[in-house]
Amino acid sequence: MTMRIAVLGLGAMGLPTGTHLTKLATVAGYDIDQERLALAEAAGIEPATSAQEAATGADVVLLAVRNSAQLDDALFGADGVVSVLAAGAVVILTSTVGMAGIQAVEPRVRDAGLLLVDAPVSGGPTRAGDGTLLVTVGADDAAWAKAKPVLDHMAGTLVRVGDTPGAGQAMKTVNQLLCGVHIAAAGEAMALANRLGLDPSAALDALMAGAASSWMLGDRGPRAIQALHSEEAEVRSRLDIFVKDMGIVTEAAKAVGIATPVAAAAEQLYLQGLARGMAAQDDSIVVRLIDPDPS
Amino acid sequence: MTMRIAVLGLGAMGLPTGTHLTKLATVAGYDIDQERLALAEAAGIEPATSAQEAATGADVVLLAVRNSAQLDDALFGADGVVSVLAAGAVVILTSTVGMAGIQAVEPRVRDAGLLLVDAPVSGGPTRAGDGTLLVTVGADDAAWAKAKPVLDHMAGTLVRVGDTPGAGQAMKTVNQLLCGVHIAAAGEAMALANRLGLDPSAALDALMAGAASSWMLGDRGPRAIQALHSEEAEVRSRLDIFVKDMGIVTEAAKAVGIATPVAAAAEQLYLQGLARGMAAQDDSIVVRLIDPDPS
Repeated sequence: MTMRIAVLGLGAMGLPTGTHLTKLATVAGYDIDQERLALAEAAGIEPATSAQEAATGADVVLLAVRNSAQLDDALFGADGVVSVLAAGAVVILTSTVGMAGIQAVEPRVRDAGLLLVDAPVSGGPTRAGDGTLLVTVGADDAAWAKAKPVLDHMAGTLVRVGDTPGAGQAMKTVNQLLCGVHIAAAGEAMALANRLGLDPSAALDALMAGAASSWMLGDRGPRAIQALHSEEAEVRSRLDIFVKDMGIVTEAAKAVGIATPVAAAAEQLYLQGLARGMAAQDDSIVVRLIDPDPS
Repeated sequence: MTMRIAVLGLGAMGLPTGTHLTKLATVAGYDIDQERLALAEAAGIEPATSAQEAATGADVVLLAVRNSAQLDDALFGADGVVSVLAAGAVVILTSTVGMAGIQAVEPRVRDAGLLLVDAPVSGGPTRAGDGTLLVTVGADDAAWAKAKPVLDHMAGTLVRVGDTPGAGQAMKTVNQLLCGVHIAAAGEAMALANRLGLDPSAALDALMAGAASSWMLGDRGPRAIQALHSEEAEVRSRLDIFVKDMGIVTEAAKAVGIATPVAAAAEQLYLQGLARGMAAQDDSIVVRLIDPDPS
């Protein structure tokens, strides 16, 4: 019998992930946005008229929601799927909601006889479509065993970092601390190079050759230079993702009683971008927060 | 006729650099510290009793000083070398003193008929000894032409980023912004991973596989984990280097009228380390500033 997967949330990540999963299983999908549903149908996903319809009879529910509130709603709201899933079905959370977010729902999911897999993903829409995401997982043995074929299909790199839901979020939180700081540092560096009279492109090449290099500098640096030249950079990763994720980082640090001043400074930059109406721009636009008037 | 090079400052960088240069030229050296002079002599460097003695008859003076004040003193102080050098001799500054530091001495060096090469180096003592440093250069054509054989011998990667003294410092300043922020972020990330219950070593491996990776995370991460376990890490790069260098970064940003809040937050961390008596420890110790009491 073919596996049935329900994908809830057909946004920038849910749609390509679901589309790629049609090669493995029968996939039903739901999104509140009719346009996304139409795109999903065109990509071979069965469109459903509700989350509960999509989830009925599903072996696996894959959640690609925006935040904790949507997670709670998708599971336990008026159209929540927990009430329609058969015992032993597995819920895979692919979103970054923080440890507190998944730990809050975990007991109720377990009490309903369902398996829960904490599997936040990294890598963006293209890698979601290719099945080459970085997936960090927290799950007990039973949930891990049942979810593994689906996770293997989605992931280029699959790491089980712990045996409880929350461990995947913890790992993603640390990952986003570094990513968010590195993007902000790349913006500061490119703005400073430009103001000091260096050629930003030549500087970027030299920096990437040595100890100053980071994956994010290599990726965001060229778009930051475009932004310095007032060229519109392609939006590959929205700034407001890091408003959310750096919020999760600093909350997580606070919850365990440590200060992370560098991450907090980066968070403030993303919040400044939000306040300046840059939410939907590529996050490399932080270079223009540092230097709004580059010459 | 063999080239004569005087190396002033036989510290952690000057000694291995000078030693490596003995394969290219006759090298005289001077340091105020007799122990360093004895080490230099053992390594094949002619020890001098003063900076002026070392520089007399030299084609090239290589300065490996700590800061602007020492730079000024080595050039123009009571034992300053500018007064003994022949016209056309070249002064190579390998230290990180900031743009303002070298621009302050440049007119007087030029007026004395000397050539000035701004060539701050990166890579540490081992690469200094191997001749594989990263060297970023600001120099006019005449100075560049004369210094190039020496720089080639020192460098694994040699980049001329501009045609005036100051351009090398500018590039190094941007480089250190990134390095200093990445080291601090690595400390925050490793401390947070540990507090969130992740295995720091497994987390480090996973982080280095993806978008969170940086050269510094790969280099300092393992020593940060040692520090979390209260093991004494080998001192490969002293914390007080970044107290100085992040000071240069934030001063440079201020001088051109931009704020760099993430670099400023990292600078505060290094200053906290200084205040806690960690100046001579490896800079990966920032992880213990974030979490003084890891369990």
